[in-house]
Amino acid sequence: MAQSVLTIDLGAICANWRALAAMNAGETGAVVKANAYGLGAGKVAKALADAGARTFFVALAEEGVTIRKALGPGPTICVFGGHMQGDAPLLRDANLVPMINSIDQMLRHVEALPGHPFGIQLDSGMNRLGMEPAEWTALREIALSQKPVLVMSHLACADEPNHGMNAFQLQTFHQMTDGIEAPRSLSATGGTILGADYHFDMTRPGIGLYGGLPFVDALPVVSLSIPVIQVRDVNPGESVGYGNSWVARVSSRIATISAGYADGIIRAMGPKAFVWAGETRCKIVGRISMDLIGVDVGPVKDMPDTVELLGRHQSIDTLADAAGTIGYEILTSLGSRYERRYIDG
Amino acid sequence: MAQSVLTIDLGAICANWRALAAMNAGETGAVVKANAYGLGAGKVAKALADAGARTFFVALAEEGVTIRKALGPGPTICVFGGHMQGDAPLLRDANLVPMINSIDQMLRHVEALPGHPFGIQLDSGMNRLGMEPAEWTALREIALSQKPVLVMSHLACADEPNHGMNAFQLQTFHQMTDGIEAPRSLSATGGTILGADYHFDMTRPGIGLYGGLPFVDALPVVSLSIPVIQVRDVNPGESVGYGNSWVARVSSRIATISAGYADGIIRAMGPKAFVWAGETRCKIVGRISMDLIGVDVGPVKDMPDTVELLGRHQSIDTLADAAGTIGYEILTSLGSRYERRYIDG
Repeated sequence: MAQSVLTIDLGAICANWRALAAMNAGETGAVVKANAYGLGAGKVAKALADAGARTFFVALAEEGVTIRKALGPGPTICVFGGHMQGDAPLLRDANLVPMINSIDQMLRHVEALPGHPFGIQLDSGMNRLGMEPAEWTALREIALSQKPVLVMSHLACADEPNHGMNAFQLQTFHQMTDGIEAPRSLSATGGTILGADYHFDMTRPGIGLYGGLPFVDALPVVSLSIPVIQVRDVNPGESVGYGNSWVARVSSRIATISAGYADGIIRAMGPKAFVWAGETRCKIVGRISMDLIGVDVGPVKDMPDTVELLGRHQSIDTLADAAGTIGYEILTSLGSRYERRYIDG
Repeated sequence: MAQSVLTIDLGAICANWRALAAMNAGETGAVVKANAYGLGAGKVAKALADAGARTFFVALAEEGVTIRKALGPGPTICVFGGHMQGDAPLLRDANLVPMINSIDQMLRHVEALPGHPFGIQLDSGMNRLGMEPAEWTALREIALSQKPVLVMSHLACADEPNHGMNAFQLQTFHQMTDGIEAPRSLSATGGTILGADYHFDMTRPGIGLYGGLPFVDALPVVSLSIPVIQVRDVNPGESVGYGNSWVARVSSRIATISAGYADGIIRAMGPKAFVWAGETRCKIVGRISMDLIGVDVGPVKDMPDTVELLGRHQSIDTLADAAGTIGYEILTSLGSRYERRYIDG
């Protein structure tokens, strides 16, 4: 088989959820948007529900429908995108809770689905989703009279504990919500780690569940094993891959492995990334192609049938550094061509 | 709906195939690996078969099985990865033709599937897949006696017509194959454009079918429409998005649109990319998040419900420039969360 194998440890995801839940006194939800950060929304949500999670968050109503099918009735499923034009049948049939982002969305919601549960999303400074302070002031009384199930906002800089934006957004959120009856939520993984001031009634971890920074102690969740198609000797002066961008300076031994940027191995990481052949770290050489990557396996004693790109030796954040991005994008880029194997919780 | 819509023009794919086929006298195959560059392997292969393509190329045997299901018996389906350990049942049951890359693969093939069709892949200098000249010399007689259906190699620098590597690989391929009876193939899209010397008996276009460079006259194939969730006024000094990386210098009007790097909108393009609101080009501001992007819509007169990231105003190659990559990676990154709409050929 030339098909790579992505192993997803549902037990580790649940353990990470429990560890984050133990940090705060309130309820701990779970963010499963973007197909649970690429790891399989249905399976991940089911495992987390079995572990005790009762509230789930997605970006789109369509994603909420997938989660509802996996979980059945019972758990609360909140939609960050709110109530968009045309969403009413999805929200109603799958019993989803839109996080209302604007007066427009509020009007749409009460007109299309009177009495249907909703939450409120407030903008505390990120200027991305949610009502501005002035908009909220105008709507607040009438919205609260309809009993929102959650009032939330989102931090822009929670990955940087010392960033002044955190305290600014905390203060703004207090100003916008102090004294209300509805449960409140401000923090995802980063805010959970910032401490009790940021926890309110519900936290909403995402990346921490999936083994990524800023949750330093997260258990790793994914490992990726890539088959070796062939190994060849390359003479000094010969090039490897597209554009002749890598030229051997000395006699080299090059493995061609069976994955590429079509599998979400971001092309930009080529010049800086490594794979592991057993216990030996091996440099990627030449440009990453769509389905294939060249690797310098000169130092490898016994060449294995597969190499490891993610796993025991290399985390999503290390790989993200090589690609000039963040672990989140490494996860959400993971391709559909992998065989996915799940380790149960 | 907050779900973005990706429209794929199968008619344009077929027209591009016909245009590339008209450039050469031999057979023109079609590369449909990586889920037809992200556009849907089954639908694309079916449309191309209806347009007249008889030979299809994939990277993995598993992909070949998908194509066989879509096409039924008849067309030839070649697997670039060759015959890997464990592939025999897939190759046999789906009647796939492995492109044998090494003596090891040749031995595996004749042992596991004696008499089953195969092709030969030669390395003419890219050092990625295929037999080296010395390996080929050792195997040539016995391999040719088994009547391979195709003998092929692949160009490393065909996107650069003046690169000396092209002539070098052409000469090497001639040296390795002149005088054999089996049909020969050297070129994908780039080599097809290089001219008749590079065509041999079969060309194998991939990117040109899907509207990308180096086929300058390719019809565009994809368009991507992203819903606007909300629009807000932002005061000078306020920031937008994660990490406060963008700060408004003047009073601004910012739209939040419903797609992000989880949809394959590569995070690195943020500082350089634009979307189109009707006929107005609008700059992306702040970091691209997983599901959301901020856009400066100040210049827009009548704000539409959706904006265009790919389509009439902006090609995959223009977007690739913004991301520091190539059009191929823009295509293969296109996310699974889009609603896909097909325009028939």
